[in-house]
Amino acid sequence: MKLASLKCGRDGRLVVVSRDLARCVAAHEVAPTLQAALDDWAEAEPRLRAIAEQLDSGAWPGEPFDQTQAHSPLPRAYQWADGSAYINHVELVRKARNAEVPESFYSDPLMYQGGSDAFLPPRDPIVLRDEAWGCDMEGEVAVITDDVPPGVTSEQALGHIKLVMLCNDVSLRNLIPGELAKGFGFFQSKPPSAFSPVAVTPDELGAAWRDARVHLPLGIDYNGQPFGRAEAGEDATFSLADLVAHAARTRPLCAGTVIGSGTVSNKDADGSPGRPVNEGGLGYSCIAEIRTIETIRDGKPATDFMRWGDRVGIEMLDREGHSIFGRIEQEVVRA
Amino acid sequence: MKLASLKCGRDGRLVVVSRDLARCVAAHEVAPTLQAALDDWAEAEPRLRAIAEQLDSGAWPGEPFDQTQAHSPLPRAYQWADGSAYINHVELVRKARNAEVPESFYSDPLMYQGGSDAFLPPRDPIVLRDEAWGCDMEGEVAVITDDVPPGVTSEQALGHIKLVMLCNDVSLRNLIPGELAKGFGFFQSKPPSAFSPVAVTPDELGAAWRDARVHLPLGIDYNGQPFGRAEAGEDATFSLADLVAHAARTRPLCAGTVIGSGTVSNKDADGSPGRPVNEGGLGYSCIAEIRTIETIRDGKPATDFMRWGDRVGIEMLDREGHSIFGRIEQEVVRA
Repeated sequence: MKLASLKCGRDGRLVVVSRDLARCVAAHEVAPTLQAALDDWAEAEPRLRAIAEQLDSGAWPGEPFDQTQAHSPLPRAYQWADGSAYINHVELVRKARNAEVPESFYSDPLMYQGGSDAFLPPRDPIVLRDEAWGCDMEGEVAVITDDVPPGVTSEQALGHIKLVMLCNDVSLRNLIPGELAKGFGFFQSKPPSAFSPVAVTPDELGAAWRDARVHLPLGIDYNGQPFGRAEAGEDATFSLADLVAHAARTRPLCAGTVIGSGTVSNKDADGSPGRPVNEGGLGYSCIAEIRTIETIRDGKPATDFMRWGDRVGIEMLDREGHSIFGRIEQEVVRA
Repeated sequence: MKLASLKCGRDGRLVVVSRDLARCVAAHEVAPTLQAALDDWAEAEPRLRAIAEQLDSGAWPGEPFDQTQAHSPLPRAYQWADGSAYINHVELVRKARNAEVPESFYSDPLMYQGGSDAFLPPRDPIVLRDEAWGCDMEGEVAVITDDVPPGVTSEQALGHIKLVMLCNDVSLRNLIPGELAKGFGFFQSKPPSAFSPVAVTPDELGAAWRDARVHLPLGIDYNGQPFGRAEAGEDATFSLADLVAHAARTRPLCAGTVIGSGTVSNKDADGSPGRPVNEGGLGYSCIAEIRTIETIRDGKPATDFMRWGDRVGIEMLDREGHSIFGRIEQEVVRA
């Protein structure tokens, strides 16, 4: 089942989307918003699935689904917590600032509490007041949970993952060192994130959903060129269920909690940190990584962070080449 | 005007509360929940004030207001960001771990993004799975904003502060050092916070609301004894408006954003870090501070963090001795 929130008020209008993303049907008889559906998921899910079956079988024609009219599936959420499952990314960004990766990072996930009060729609611009802040995209996989009790195991957490989507976790790289040095984590360096036009139930991923990981490449395009094709199922030290369990260790998670994977990042087959796409590698899901590679090779970065007019596209295709979640496509614009 | 959310579903049921906290009137004709009222505050505020006038004049009798039936004013919120306005607190907790206070902390506020998906009701227990986590209370002042555009000044931010309340920012002290060492800020060390039964508009504070600070003592009782009486208007390096502006520097804040002051903390009149209440001082709004004082004096802390059965009360009285926000009263209990 695929769900989206069409732009409407603060919380969008819930629709069920056809598997091919071509059509949709209003779901207001089940719930006005996705949050309302998640608040009573056991009741809402079978009714939404019944609509999806009618839509996918062609019994109901529905209306055309226009990704540009979609907000993030949860236009605002009660919780957004972003992990860092791909240690290759952590190793690279730390290498760029000459910092070691502590041994504990391989068993205890990094996670920060993000702002969730105002996500960007997936096709809306990233409004940047100051180019000197060093705007970067971060391509990620994210999940939405129902109510998670405190202290769940990873195995239990898996059953609480109700929807999967993609994320552009926008970061202001040049604000990060100063902010992390203060010791309280990210705040100003993490402006609103955007999520894919469509969120899907895990079963929609078929065999690509296993070990609480999505075993498909995450496509990142930058200014119209392929930039990243990293396998989201590879090199993830922690599964999405591990991250949910980490988040729930000392507290319950409310239905509608969004948990991110962190920037998807692969090592090269030979164990090296990974080549650019145009050199035959799998590339990168953020600019910080290619800058680190450039610094390692050439002594300094050559690729700028995003400037006004730069565009990022984030999409995941199934093995037959069909878009699963629709496409995040954002341009950085002046305030 | 005073507002509360009676326990009902996930988001409570909005009521207008009389100035003396004795009575209340349902406000569902204006908005079903406080979040809904904040989402359209310009429309909702005058209608809620009209109800408050009828209630306070005695024209409407209302029904009895029972603080034990109140949830936090926002039972869950789209954003909770906690500052650290009282540098005395920062100096003390850093002294306890032999860390310096950087000079920038006196001009650039500390702030962390907190979990906002599931606040505790103000009279509900703090469920603690493991006493070894080092449970502490933190008494704070908090504000709720309407929509705040990015990049506002402190002066502009002041006008976006719509409601004021108290907070018990529950902390798991023994999880903090390890978590902060990872560099991404608090997560597991900050289980759900609780807020006072009632949130009030700033005008309700009269002359005590000036410079975007609340000039009244914050009463903290611990196991039935006075523990803290710090003046919330004193020693606040940053005003609540400064903290809102800090939060909004690179992003908009959605209506219903909750911003906390950090633990209220005063120096002694002679500039020393402050004596306990039973020694004639203003005491402390958290246990970590008295432990630091004990460590400075005696080489080691004598007061334990909260254990199962310990109780904290947080309340603020006006200069005539009347409770403004109602009382937070929580017992730590075993899971």
